Amino acid sequence: MNIGIDMMGGDYAPLEAVKGIREYLDANGTARLTLIGDETALKPLLEEYKIPATAVVVVNSTQVIGMHEHPTKALKEKPESSISIGFHMLAKGSTDAFISAGNTGAMLVGALFSIKAVEGVIRPTISTLIPMQNGGTGLLLDVGLNADCKPEQLNQFAVMGSVYAQQVLGIDNPGVGLLNVGEEEGKGNLLAQATYPLLKENKDINFIGNIEGRDVFQSKADVMVCEGFTGNIILKMAESIYDISRGQQIENDYFNRFNFENYGGTPVLGVAKPVIIGHGISGARAFRQMIGVAEKMIETKVLEEMGKKFTS
Amino acid sequence: MNIGIDMMGGDYAPLEAVKGIREYLDANGTARLTLIGDETALKPLLEEYKIPATAVVVVNSTQVIGMHEHPTKALKEKPESSISIGFHMLAKGSTDAFISAGNTGAMLVGALFSIKAVEGVIRPTISTLIPMQNGGTGLLLDVGLNADCKPEQLNQFAVMGSVYAQQVLGIDNPGVGLLNVGEEEGKGNLLAQATYPLLKENKDINFIGNIEGRDVFQSKADVMVCEGFTGNIILKMAESIYDISRGQQIENDYFNRFNFENYGGTPVLGVAKPVIIGHGISGARAFRQMIGVAEKMIETKVLEEMGKKFTS
Repeated sequence: MNIGIDMMGGDYAPLEAVKGIREYLDANGTARLTLIGDETALKPLLEEYKIPATAVVVVNSTQVIGMHEHPTKALKEKPESSISIGFHMLAKGSTDAFISAGNTGAMLVGALFSIKAVEGVIRPTISTLIPMQNGGTGLLLDVGLNADCKPEQLNQFAVMGSVYAQQVLGIDNPGVGLLNVGEEEGKGNLLAQATYPLLKENKDINFIGNIEGRDVFQSKADVMVCEGFTGNIILKMAESIYDISRGQQIENDYFNRFNFENYGGTPVLGVAKPVIIGHGISGARAFRQMIGVAEKMIETKVLEEMGKKFTS
Repeated sequence: MNIGIDMMGGDYAPLEAVKGIREYLDANGTARLTLIGDETALKPLLEEYKIPATAVVVVNSTQVIGMHEHPTKALKEKPESSISIGFHMLAKGSTDAFISAGNTGAMLVGALFSIKAVEGVIRPTISTLIPMQNGGTGLLLDVGLNADCKPEQLNQFAVMGSVYAQQVLGIDNPGVGLLNVGEEEGKGNLLAQATYPLLKENKDINFIGNIEGRDVFQSKADVMVCEGFTGNIILKMAESIYDISRGQQIENDYFNRFNFENYGGTPVLGVAKPVIIGHGISGARAFRQMIGVAEKMIETKVLEEMGKKFTS
């Protein structure tokens, strides 16, 4: 197993990425890591943090895509950037997964255009983990890749989310809820109304019905499905709850779980190979988590499993 | 000024309504209150709480619309219910406002079909107050009446919200934000993309641009505009934050402000007379607040002010 890591992505690159790798190795991580970045900047850090040459291979990149560059333009004009090289290596099979905390747009464009979609998938999706009050973890999707959706897409998100929850999060027979404005069938906007019957009839998921805003943190559903507009707003509100609780100097275990660094990054679901996108502010812990997620996605062949659902 | 109150609506009716009236009178409230409800149930409570006959008039109702009844059906089949009578009195001018914590659907149907819309308004809307971290209060709309919206409707919500924020909340030149998935113009789903230019060109509002989920509690905008699907989910998530902080035994002034009882009810904006819908769990404090909101809406002629924006 070989995991590619963009060492130049994120606000604290490459230092925090190196520290994350150190943490991963300390926890007996065994994947081979391909570190893509500016060799001259990386070398002293790898020495300082005693990263053994047996665990990593450094691939030099001479360009960096900035956090605010236009994604397609940057990918086109910077073929020697760490993100471009990362996708190139993943596409041709030199690596089995690719992780970056860099330009989110460029990561999405790279995932969508340089990595094949899982067969049968209309559009890939991105998800986030949601800390539940009972200690568990839920999965919310889409969280921003698809701001406008058709019912068929939401139906696919439900399947992809279920497979991911089962294989990677280890949730047995995950319950799927449709984010909506009321509990009863027939409630909602046109999209939700049209999606409900599809989910109800879908044999590949355990549909539990509509869930409301108040249920998001209540583990009513393990997999929560909505279009990316609503999902993105929920995600950013949830992130802000952590900032607020810090600002209010509240020390609470549950609210601390809203620290999204705990979860590392967001996998792109529906593309054929694991691509994990980290937050710009990713620190060592986030990098370590992302490596762990990539590892698990490779091990469990979760993306292949998704493919089976759409082609059978 | 005469404010109609449904004494039979809500989980703790009529007791909490009576206690709310007591609190209102204790705070030197001077509006005349028309109490619509079961006379035999009300009389002993009004005596017990020493509500003077000079302050209130009791109008007997012999039917009650339950919390889970079908709104249109119930209003049709129960003309002697407190909600039906309340709207009848408001429509013919016997009262100047109507408050109920009863069946929300019936309240909305009553407001839309028995009270004229403000001239020029495409569809009325409902809003909620949002506690801001800086101590202020924001207004979010729509929060569920209009799950699917056109850009023109969001543009009208922006105007109605601005007038309400100015007149009733006392916010000078309120900033209007469009709820979206990114800050830049051009971001968002098709609705948000089409709404942005309308808000930008609207001379009746102080448009500050897009706001994201993380900005909802940050007083970036005083008036936050979205369709009712997203708004309803935000509202119910915000309500759940209070429940969570209570469940976690967090005693924090800011999180305590998420107790939506503080705000009483939700006025229906865009109908020609004040209609205020309370939460089913409304207690004394919520009733008192709702009477205060109705009073302020009558005093400031806020609904007339809205009308001027759409007819001039």
